[in-house]
Amino acid sequence: MNDPGPTRLPLRRLGVDTYQEPVIYMHADCAVCRAEGFEAQSRIRIALGERAIIATLNVIRSEWLSPHEAALSEAAWSALAAHEGELATLSHPEPLESFSAVRAKIYGHPFSADALQAIIGDISTGRYSALETAAFITACAGRNMSLDESIALTRAMIDAGTRLQWPGHAIVVDKHCIGGLPGNRTTPIVVAIAAAFGLTMPKTSSRAITSPAGTADTMETLAPVDLDLGAMRRVVEHEGGCIVWGGAMALSPADDLLIRVERPLDFDSDGQLVASVLSKKVAAGSTHLIIDIPVGTTAKVRTSEAARALEVRLQTVAIAMGLTVRIVQTNGDQPVGRGIGPALEARDVLAVLQNDPAAPPDLREHALLLSGTLLETADAVGVGQGTLAAAKVLGSGAAWRKFLAICEAQGGFRMPPQATHRHEIAATQPGQVLAIDNRRLARAAKLAGAPSAPAAGIDLHVRLGDSIAAGQPLFTLQAGNRGELEYARAYLASAPLPVRVGAPS
Amino acid sequence: MNDPGPTRLPLRRLGVDTYQEPVIYMHADCAVCRAEGFEAQSRIRIALGERAIIATLNVIRSEWLSPHEAALSEAAWSALAAHEGELATLSHPEPLESFSAVRAKIYGHPFSADALQAIIGDISTGRYSALETAAFITACAGRNMSLDESIALTRAMIDAGTRLQWPGHAIVVDKHCIGGLPGNRTTPIVVAIAAAFGLTMPKTSSRAITSPAGTADTMETLAPVDLDLGAMRRVVEHEGGCIVWGGAMALSPADDLLIRVERPLDFDSDGQLVASVLSKKVAAGSTHLIIDIPVGTTAKVRTSEAARALEVRLQTVAIAMGLTVRIVQTNGDQPVGRGIGPALEARDVLAVLQNDPAAPPDLREHALLLSGTLLETADAVGVGQGTLAAAKVLGSGAAWRKFLAICEAQGGFRMPPQATHRHEIAATQPGQVLAIDNRRLARAAKLAGAPSAPAAGIDLHVRLGDSIAAGQPLFTLQAGNRGELEYARAYLASAPLPVRVGAPS
Repeated sequence: MNDPGPTRLPLRRLGVDTYQEPVIYMHADCAVCRAEGFEAQSRIRIALGERAIIATLNVIRSEWLSPHEAALSEAAWSALAAHEGELATLSHPEPLESFSAVRAKIYGHPFSADALQAIIGDISTGRYSALETAAFITACAGRNMSLDESIALTRAMIDAGTRLQWPGHAIVVDKHCIGGLPGNRTTPIVVAIAAAFGLTMPKTSSRAITSPAGTADTMETLAPVDLDLGAMRRVVEHEGGCIVWGGAMALSPADDLLIRVERPLDFDSDGQLVASVLSKKVAAGSTHLIIDIPVGTTAKVRTSEAARALEVRLQTVAIAMGLTVRIVQTNGDQPVGRGIGPALEARDVLAVLQNDPAAPPDLREHALLLSGTLLETADAVGVGQGTLAAAKVLGSGAAWRKFLAICEAQGGFRMPPQATHRHEIAATQPGQVLAIDNRRLARAAKLAGAPSAPAAGIDLHVRLGDSIAAGQPLFTLQAGNRGELEYARAYLASAPLPVRVGAPS
Repeated sequence: MNDPGPTRLPLRRLGVDTYQEPVIYMHADCAVCRAEGFEAQSRIRIALGERAIIATLNVIRSEWLSPHEAALSEAAWSALAAHEGELATLSHPEPLESFSAVRAKIYGHPFSADALQAIIGDISTGRYSALETAAFITACAGRNMSLDESIALTRAMIDAGTRLQWPGHAIVVDKHCIGGLPGNRTTPIVVAIAAAFGLTMPKTSSRAITSPAGTADTMETLAPVDLDLGAMRRVVEHEGGCIVWGGAMALSPADDLLIRVERPLDFDSDGQLVASVLSKKVAAGSTHLIIDIPVGTTAKVRTSEAARALEVRLQTVAIAMGLTVRIVQTNGDQPVGRGIGPALEARDVLAVLQNDPAAPPDLREHALLLSGTLLETADAVGVGQGTLAAAKVLGSGAAWRKFLAICEAQGGFRMPPQATHRHEIAATQPGQVLAIDNRRLARAAKLAGAPSAPAAGIDLHVRLGDSIAAGQPLFTLQAGNRGELEYARAYLASAPLPVRVGAPS
């Protein structure tokens, strides 16, 4: 037998951002590669003492890596908490047994609870490649998950992460909006009202998956959101509420890894949606939850029937998890507020909280409806008294003072940034605003750079039913650089405008 | 407005093998990145004059790439046929409109023929990322494709590639085996017999997708298989047949790109299977085709009912394509021949062709059955006379001489390599061979290095029903290095042996 060669190699940080996919780079002449039979796209276990990750191999056939070292992508480097030159042990990972359940699912066999526990456990410990994760997501997508599978998936996602406790707080409230209607940024307002009212609302929010902004993206233009668990707990104990990014909490680590693959694919599914939403709420220690489902032809949920199916699934899983949920269907025919994109939405939120007379009235009304429902669901006020109670807290300035205090406690309030590149789109003919396409507006805002460029997005100047003169501005594109502004303009020029103006029928 | 900055950068070959995924590397401080708003995992169009590809961005945050250049992975470099320092134009690709049909499919909406044309067109021109391809494959997998969708997918795959013509040959025969029973390497024998009989059989074969060897892998240990179209045509015009790798022919380029993603996922589907098989046959100019479907509990097709469903789909699509197909169900309860892995299977093929008395009788019989059926299907002999006619050609040495002539015409006959590392697995008790698990044998052969290491695999010493003494060798693991040999041994040690010996019930 030949000498097996070393299975240990010193690690080098390569500084390659592969967007969360852990990659290991080894030279084609590397003894470890040859001894172990590794080739491009092999999955390799990299261990540093007790810590280990699995990464995908890229084979180097040039001079910039020596055969006597292995280099890591940024995602691999930080997941392993490696140091320059540390000796890592490289080996074949155990076969990925849980993936056989994904293959069986594709052939129509439902997931067992055990299978989902195994899959989510493997995903949350980084054992699935991006391709395997994409196959799992696709197998769960559409309406391919039964209620039992949804319950099991939700439980598996909770079990894979941290679970927060709030000793001394019998009631912990939360809210969620399904389907990201552009501009529908009620969360910061609801948290401010609920906390000002004395409720406990430790809100963890996500960044955008397929939309131009998530609540965490918007909130980050107003205050730091990247708090660790201890810092979050201090904010909540002091102010009763917070609005932080949930990704740093490891509340449902599998969900964060699923999102990295869902995002470029730009699709999700009822089964995964419910598990994603409810696993994070249960893990965050919530007891009472309201869920906003905007319904409209260009919203994520297009019909009342679809909303109803989602409601059944949400309520069924919530009951299994011991969570009290109240669902509110709202009108999703057009964006809420005026801004679409992190900073532009933050501007609208501030206007409502500050009782600015020019604040978007629909955002204010929407936030009051949700806050009121939340107060009622948590038994903080009697049935039918919620909206009025919420309006009082907002109108008195108490909500605005609470919001500022929360921002300060999270690391300091700041004003949202402004875009450097703008382009106004005007009506080419007089008439009435007949339809607004949420999806095309969101897509244009994303092409303009949102949410990566926080100031980018769309400022919408009209609402359904408005009478418009020829040449009147409909909306303004905002971007952080000319390339993205031009890309959004090119997209808008390629099809009818997302705001349709014409003679009323 | 700021200066948009250059959108052209000189290209550098980085020598990174990412296994067919085109990747572009740009520095985080690169002006083009900033002007265009590119970030890690952005899809970028790279154009050199008329040639253009789409690649995935990895962002470099270290010194080894300057902000004034862009580097390409090997797959991107060769797809673009780039030269060092050439100035490439970088831009956002057009939105991938065809992917919306994949999303709709996941929600239960069938693919239209137009949608499949658009998807396959986009895949074959490299516009789908690996993740998007994985989602498409998963959406088509299992039994999620209707017969109409299969026909449309097959047609789309033919239209996306080259289509061979064989002027002067009214009948062009072909064969295919579905489900890769280990060791079932009849193709070289069938081609030799058919060509020796005077038929035209321009055989293009694939490399392994999920098995330890494809016909192209096995044939490559005997002669070059990587021929271009002109070279293949010369071989066929001269010898009547060939056995070459189909990937170089661009017969169904989308299929080759689908395989790069199917391979790590280790699954495929009836719809995709039928399209993959028949699109290559039609594109290769075949008129008459036999398909071998081994059926067994550990074969790919496990029951006669499953084989029948596949037959219906194959015949339906074949009729729509104007192809005459004859399907032969064979016994798939155990491997065929003795070797599993490219070189070991080649050794068995040679023994049959050379009429070696020690040649595996099952491989010989199986090859004669298929050759005979092919002669009958092509009307070269009367019904019921095929097997005898084939046996004559084989027994006379004409098939062996024809095979050698084909190998010489393809670039020269050579003997298959032998493995350097071996490990024998023996029976621990006396008894009868009661069951052989094809899947676990194939997996062990793959872990031992097949097909990347052509000499690696398994040499099987027993067959179902054999009486075995304690300590008698059951099979021998063969590998090219100790790491892979150990990995295969560890896998075998982790569960019951794939060859089950016990008292007959």
